[in-house]
Amino acid sequence: MKHIAILGPGLLGGSIALALRNDIDVRVSMWARRVDAVEEAKALDVADLVTTSLEEAVTDADTVLLCVPVGAMSGIVSQILPKLSPDALVTDVGSVKGLVCRSLGPALKGRAHFIGSHPMAGSERAGIGAARADLFQSAVCIITPEAGDTSTVAIQRATALWERLGCRVRVLTPSVHDQICAMISHLPHLSAAALVNTVEALCPEAFGFCGTGFRDSTRIAGGLPAMWTEILLSNRTAVAESLRRFISILESAAEQLEGSDPSAEEEMFQFLNTAKTRRESLPGQSR
Amino acid sequence: MKHIAILGPGLLGGSIALALRNDIDVRVSMWARRVDAVEEAKALDVADLVTTSLEEAVTDADTVLLCVPVGAMSGIVSQILPKLSPDALVTDVGSVKGLVCRSLGPALKGRAHFIGSHPMAGSERAGIGAARADLFQSAVCIITPEAGDTSTVAIQRATALWERLGCRVRVLTPSVHDQICAMISHLPHLSAAALVNTVEALCPEAFGFCGTGFRDSTRIAGGLPAMWTEILLSNRTAVAESLRRFISILESAAEQLEGSDPSAEEEMFQFLNTAKTRRESLPGQSR
Repeated sequence: MKHIAILGPGLLGGSIALALRNDIDVRVSMWARRVDAVEEAKALDVADLVTTSLEEAVTDADTVLLCVPVGAMSGIVSQILPKLSPDALVTDVGSVKGLVCRSLGPALKGRAHFIGSHPMAGSERAGIGAARADLFQSAVCIITPEAGDTSTVAIQRATALWERLGCRVRVLTPSVHDQICAMISHLPHLSAAALVNTVEALCPEAFGFCGTGFRDSTRIAGGLPAMWTEILLSNRTAVAESLRRFISILESAAEQLEGSDPSAEEEMFQFLNTAKTRRESLPGQSR
Repeated sequence: MKHIAILGPGLLGGSIALALRNDIDVRVSMWARRVDAVEEAKALDVADLVTTSLEEAVTDADTVLLCVPVGAMSGIVSQILPKLSPDALVTDVGSVKGLVCRSLGPALKGRAHFIGSHPMAGSERAGIGAARADLFQSAVCIITPEAGDTSTVAIQRATALWERLGCRVRVLTPSVHDQICAMISHLPHLSAAALVNTVEALCPEAFGFCGTGFRDSTRIAGGLPAMWTEILLSNRTAVAESLRRFISILESAAEQLEGSDPSAEEEMFQFLNTAKTRRESLPGQSR
């Protein structure tokens, strides 16, 4: 029987536990820092063992999944090191990979098989109460080996784990992962928050007229502020680069609106048409 | 029996026609410029009469609904003027009201009861093929009387019409309407298009990793480029003002990411927290 230790009882940790709940050949242990989080996970019956003891959770684990905020990972890894089997796979679910892999890779070298993972599934809802067994179905999971530092065993076992959870696995280096996520996830988060804050600054009464367009455009601004602050600052270089390009594209649009150049109409049309055409060709586009 | 003439066979005109289809005391006529659009509307059986003749469509109409692009409205109004009953209500469904009301109000003065309308329902899908009888159910419709220039009759009859179609009616001046829509509709449209174009400019391969967050944030970028170019340029002053504030808020975020100020974490948290709190208090919030 395999033993998977899930460290962290949030939306992702809880959903992984639920997805594995009916696998009779897998024993799942879950660690939570707070006693009330342990009680909540127990009430939902997500794992065979739920405990506040890291040592108890990881003892004899074949696989350890770090499902805590990015900033908490290295502290937890140093605590579990003495209990890790050298054959264990250690991976994480953090949204930022460069910082995580630079910290955990060396810490775990020779002590376990480490590889970074980023299952691209989530919700603006947080916590184990929002966990779903099917959260990862058809989601992309990016795993991030580093050339020369990541074992083939780690790549193979992480791939098998995420595929078992329903993911399509893609492989990127940590730094390419972070550049891509800056564009498709972190920048849209900033943009959504800035849209809300623009209305708040200019005319809060306008919120009373919001329709589905505004709601959809800003949905992700409902994410946990503390978690997103950490994500954005952990990936600050790549996020800033995307944001600067975004601002420069918006500046061009502002100049078209403010100027009296008769080409503004054609330029605005091209700008909108490029976006529409590109968006409609997104893979797996369903709406 | 009432006679409602719908000029323009697009998503909004088609949906109004469908919503009135089962009202036995209403006769609906629809005008389309192109013969193939007339054929399509006939095939969908949306109206009692579908014609390419403006004269035929508006003769004896109690109510005339302009459901064409904003830029086409004044040309159509000058063509229908000779056939309008002075008791007729004329209104429109344009997303921009200042320009429309400044043009149509004087043109129709003494010739019919005019008031601007903006039913805030729509879709990134366009055309009569996307029309739905329930498109307006629970949507807000803003009507925009101008002090001294709009008759009480126009306000009352437009209110009754939109309520009959399922809308909640709100009243704003044309200029306040345009400022509000710049913030909650036109700016998000620009932002969605700019997000797509940022990824296109920096790394098109990243589109292959897009999840629901990116899709939702950019859904409205699928709107018709020609229609949206016209909307944005027709409301350019208010859109530019919102866009400049949006850019300035994004600039602050960029500076937090790029600097080494230890207060960046707290500032980013406050920025995201304000947005989350505000968004969660949106009226009628369901997700």
